[in-house]
Amino acid sequence: MGLEGNALLLGLDIGGVNIKCSSVQWKDAGHLEQAISTKTFFPLWKQSITELHVELARVMAVHLAKYLSRNDHEIRLTVYPCASITGELSDAFASKKEGIERITSSLGSALDAVREAYPATFCTIMEPRFVAVDGTLRTMQQANARHREVAAANWHATAAWVGSFVPDCILMDCGSTTTDIIPIMAGKPSPKGKTDLDRLRSGELVYTGALRATIPSIARAVPIHGELVPVSFEKFALMADVHLLLGNITREQYDCDTADGRSTSIDDCKKRLARIVCEDAAELGDDVILEMARFLANAQVKMVQDALARVIARGHANRSIVVTGLGEAPIAMQAAEQAGCKDIISLAGKIGTAASIASSSVGILHILATWLDEAGFDGW
Amino acid sequence: MGLEGNALLLGLDIGGVNIKCSSVQWKDAGHLEQAISTKTFFPLWKQSITELHVELARVMAVHLAKYLSRNDHEIRLTVYPCASITGELSDAFASKKEGIERITSSLGSALDAVREAYPATFCTIMEPRFVAVDGTLRTMQQANARHREVAAANWHATAAWVGSFVPDCILMDCGSTTTDIIPIMAGKPSPKGKTDLDRLRSGELVYTGALRATIPSIARAVPIHGELVPVSFEKFALMADVHLLLGNITREQYDCDTADGRSTSIDDCKKRLARIVCEDAAELGDDVILEMARFLANAQVKMVQDALARVIARGHANRSIVVTGLGEAPIAMQAAEQAGCKDIISLAGKIGTAASIASSSVGILHILATWLDEAGFDGW
Repeated sequence: MGLEGNALLLGLDIGGVNIKCSSVQWKDAGHLEQAISTKTFFPLWKQSITELHVELARVMAVHLAKYLSRNDHEIRLTVYPCASITGELSDAFASKKEGIERITSSLGSALDAVREAYPATFCTIMEPRFVAVDGTLRTMQQANARHREVAAANWHATAAWVGSFVPDCILMDCGSTTTDIIPIMAGKPSPKGKTDLDRLRSGELVYTGALRATIPSIARAVPIHGELVPVSFEKFALMADVHLLLGNITREQYDCDTADGRSTSIDDCKKRLARIVCEDAAELGDDVILEMARFLANAQVKMVQDALARVIARGHANRSIVVTGLGEAPIAMQAAEQAGCKDIISLAGKIGTAASIASSSVGILHILATWLDEAGFDGW
Repeated sequence: MGLEGNALLLGLDIGGVNIKCSSVQWKDAGHLEQAISTKTFFPLWKQSITELHVELARVMAVHLAKYLSRNDHEIRLTVYPCASITGELSDAFASKKEGIERITSSLGSALDAVREAYPATFCTIMEPRFVAVDGTLRTMQQANARHREVAAANWHATAAWVGSFVPDCILMDCGSTTTDIIPIMAGKPSPKGKTDLDRLRSGELVYTGALRATIPSIARAVPIHGELVPVSFEKFALMADVHLLLGNITREQYDCDTADGRSTSIDDCKKRLARIVCEDAAELGDDVILEMARFLANAQVKMVQDALARVIARGHANRSIVVTGLGEAPIAMQAAEQAGCKDIISLAGKIGTAASIASSSVGILHILATWLDEAGFDGW
């Protein structure tokens, strides 16, 4: 077996809230749905950014361990790490430029730590590459030099991957925090906007998701006994509380911090939701709280539906809709149905839930495998 | 001079974000606008609640020191402490009941600490009283036993005080976090709602203010080059950034935490505001950021104006409007003007800025003085 036979592809999506990581051996790159994927809740605040390299090293070590224990010890792995970055928007950084530089350098330090932990007799860790919004790969130096081109490029990786098996569709990736709505034509991501700002404007980025969306971002008022009552702007509750109460997500899927630091039990979710109208759960009663939750879930679906309608109106009528992410069933699929879409394909149904939830880091494996296939291993 | 000659009235408004304290000697109680007032930013989170009694003791000691240094040392002060509570809504507490109990007990401990610091030869600290939503005073035991009646009663104190010199009006108290709109008839607060929930419903409580209001609670989208772009739900910026940029508040008045923990400089405010559409300030440019800020300020005024119109529609047309609080000029006054109100009275113009900003704790002094006047000092 040649050098590429022992190649391990490592795809990372470094966001402001989660780190997703997928890995696959080169010989299995034709079956990316079988890649190993992990998702780690790691919010990038000022306090945590100094620990990012430690967390990245930990995540990568978990992946490496799975292959090294499988492999004959005399066979060395060669690891090709590739990342997309969205965490640069975090207000831990004064600007996106600072964000990209800090994150690329954190990945560099993390790889050094992994190199130290796994001596070269076991594996060789190659220099990292970064996905740009045009789907090309950049070195660390190139990424830092043209930071806007590697900022928020994870949607491109997911869409390119999905385009490889559903060449004409609209991809709706509804995650914990944001929803991407990306037209794919002849296998290629074909959005109107490339930057976050342009994508917000075009409806291709909807800043709403199944877990972290705040209540006032969804509705200014909620119904109490049939009358609309304005809500507080305090972060008393999140849409995760709504979706858990409605049975749309499990407690295991509710993996972000709760608004009040308490548990994800049904009781605590109710208390948080009651507080948005400045009331105790016991005073409001279960029926009222559930009515509020249903109203909020519908309003969130409507938000995504409106954005989808805007995307469809730009010449994408009658296209299949591929839905994925944690909010696939309760948000994306509902929105597509209400927008009148007929052919709705569940990515989870096609490739399994694990690969679906980590679709951005699996998408990076796709970009990476395509690149290696075309440029060859010597071109790294 | 009898015992009441040395009486010191201490009014506290213990909120979820600020502690306001006003004090006046009994002999000066006819001139409450000359009361000494302080405002302390002290957000009640899970971490800080255990320190509340320390902070309350510190605040009260600052007030006491001003009188003890003025007084002849042989004359003992008798301190009458009275508080309103709104902090029970904080999600530091599982319920309002727990909130009221923890806060009343914190005030109890704080008074014990003050007693220890100032031996009885200098002053006697009486047991505290708590203002209820009907304007009566409750002992700690009574407050805990009927917690809903003392929850969020500070608006009543302010309105009762204002009613003592503008007997027929609508009071608009626009603070850092919330805005109260209270009809006053024949000197008495005459709202439709008493609890927070009922006041939200009636428009008498608008959960918006000059500092801490979040951006998505004001507008779902902002104009960029004339086109509306949806905003992120992340707490990237606050209305304090908007009002500082527009010159509506000073950096000194911007006394809450910034969204990103950085400074209140114009530059940092711009960076925070740009981030709400996922962009760097340098990319957007000053003109666009200022356009966003003006749009958001107008939208906030409109929110308050709509609530005011609802209150006016309940038989309060042609009443004078008394405006007060940090958001008096940029929010309350604008809203009243746009609602077509003719007779708008600035409380700050009438009684000075300091008393106006601490109007809730001065209001408690008014309730307290009225009570002592009617029931006498022996009735405490």
